[in-house]
Amino acid sequence: MEIDGLSINLATVRQQYNMKQAVDACLTHKISAIAPWRDQVHAIGLAEAARIVTDNGLRVTGLCRGGMFPAADAVGRATAIDDNKKAIDEAATLNADCLVLVVGGLPTGSKDIPHAREMVADGIAAILPHARASGVPIAIEPLHPMYAADRACVNTLEQALDICDLLGDGIGVAVDVYHVWWDPKLEQQIARAGASGRILAHHICDWLVPTTDMLLDRGMMGDGVIDLKRIRGMIETAGYHGPQEVEIFSAANWWKRPGEEVLSTCAQRFRTVC
Amino acid sequence: MEIDGLSINLATVRQQYNMKQAVDACLTHKISAIAPWRDQVHAIGLAEAARIVTDNGLRVTGLCRGGMFPAADAVGRATAIDDNKKAIDEAATLNADCLVLVVGGLPTGSKDIPHAREMVADGIAAILPHARASGVPIAIEPLHPMYAADRACVNTLEQALDICDLLGDGIGVAVDVYHVWWDPKLEQQIARAGASGRILAHHICDWLVPTTDMLLDRGMMGDGVIDLKRIRGMIETAGYHGPQEVEIFSAANWWKRPGEEVLSTCAQRFRTVC
Repeated sequence: MEIDGLSINLATVRQQYNMKQAVDACLTHKISAIAPWRDQVHAIGLAEAARIVTDNGLRVTGLCRGGMFPAADAVGRATAIDDNKKAIDEAATLNADCLVLVVGGLPTGSKDIPHAREMVADGIAAILPHARASGVPIAIEPLHPMYAADRACVNTLEQALDICDLLGDGIGVAVDVYHVWWDPKLEQQIARAGASGRILAHHICDWLVPTTDMLLDRGMMGDGVIDLKRIRGMIETAGYHGPQEVEIFSAANWWKRPGEEVLSTCAQRFRTVC
Repeated sequence: MEIDGLSINLATVRQQYNMKQAVDACLTHKISAIAPWRDQVHAIGLAEAARIVTDNGLRVTGLCRGGMFPAADAVGRATAIDDNKKAIDEAATLNADCLVLVVGGLPTGSKDIPHAREMVADGIAAILPHARASGVPIAIEPLHPMYAADRACVNTLEQALDICDLLGDGIGVAVDVYHVWWDPKLEQQIARAGASGRILAHHICDWLVPTTDMLLDRGMMGDGVIDLKRIRGMIETAGYHGPQEVEIFSAANWWKRPGEEVLSTCAQRFRTVC
């Protein structure tokens, strides 16, 4: 029997499988929704990736990732915009629910976070017409504040939604529990996002205590302190009922286990703690 | 010539000096403001610590720290409240500008962060009458969201100020750049804090890229990405002109250097990049 409502972000098994192998393994576990990363798509070729999606009737809950807009000079910013347009085309070809943006942090040598944030808004504004014309919703993923310097200077749902409101249609947010669980305004801002139809993705994993690596020590659902069911409730109350997408970067643990074990654990935890 | 406006949080040199040695070293560098930790005070005795403060005409920009209110049971919560009252007495004896609170995170086994936050507000409410009667302002220090689980579930200035507004007089915030530099609402909330007279302390250090340890890899001012002068400007515009207090936890770097070098570097950087 199909597992409704569960998607696997393929970063979760990136050390074990290429995209084709990952899809085969997911199907074995009755999981028929995935979210690939662009490098995984490129490794097998976009056409082959699209064929795999179509032939297997997969739902693609997102393509990871566009973004990385801030740059030290105009050439760097233009290059990022061009690359994001290509990412939009890929997302369209894969019929992805959205293109997920990790917006980028401070350019090397800069301490000017307000300027970085302007460059993000400007970059998104520059790609949005192409995204709308392509039918690809753009999902800003606010990243945990510990990534503000080097990965994403959009760090709360409130901030991301302010950008969405500025830019209009065709844009929303990816709500990743890892990045937002701590936010005192979480419930309020999820409700706000839902009211404007801006929830485009729901990513899950867990926050481990202690966390031993800031990037690559995400936990399996149930192994940490995030109240996943409570956040799911907020998101459903806000009107989003799409799949929960498991995205776990775990260099020392899950990336070292057999892919089979990772996927069966995801499925089991999805049924019990999410 | 005295260095006006510079305070040393004694955690910065805790591996090199006890409180008496740290004060002697600070005075050698013409630094006459300090912020000790309670364990450093206890190690030499409260009376001796107070004598050192008085005899040398030191300004104590804060006593670190009270807080840690959430607990799994009523006994634990009452124990925390009792200990915070003792900390208030110590802060009064040392004539500290404020008692700094690290409010505490989730009790072991709990995922209920709203409840933890209620326990924090209740705990502060319970100690506030004693703080007011003792003339000791209470400074909530919002900690970076990466500490929400295990150290402090108050994670933004906005959230801290909402608690202050709930509780009334005698309470404010410690603005530590390390914890708040990323906040998109930083300027707005610093202005709010200043308008209500609630800025009680201004802590400085720097955010390193990359950061290799979530707790003990804080940087020396100028070595990271925080725009210290911009934040200082916000704080002064908001009406706070107290000392900037250097608080650096740095297990692999500054805690291993001679205390003399640490203090001379703090003084030099204070003059140039803060």
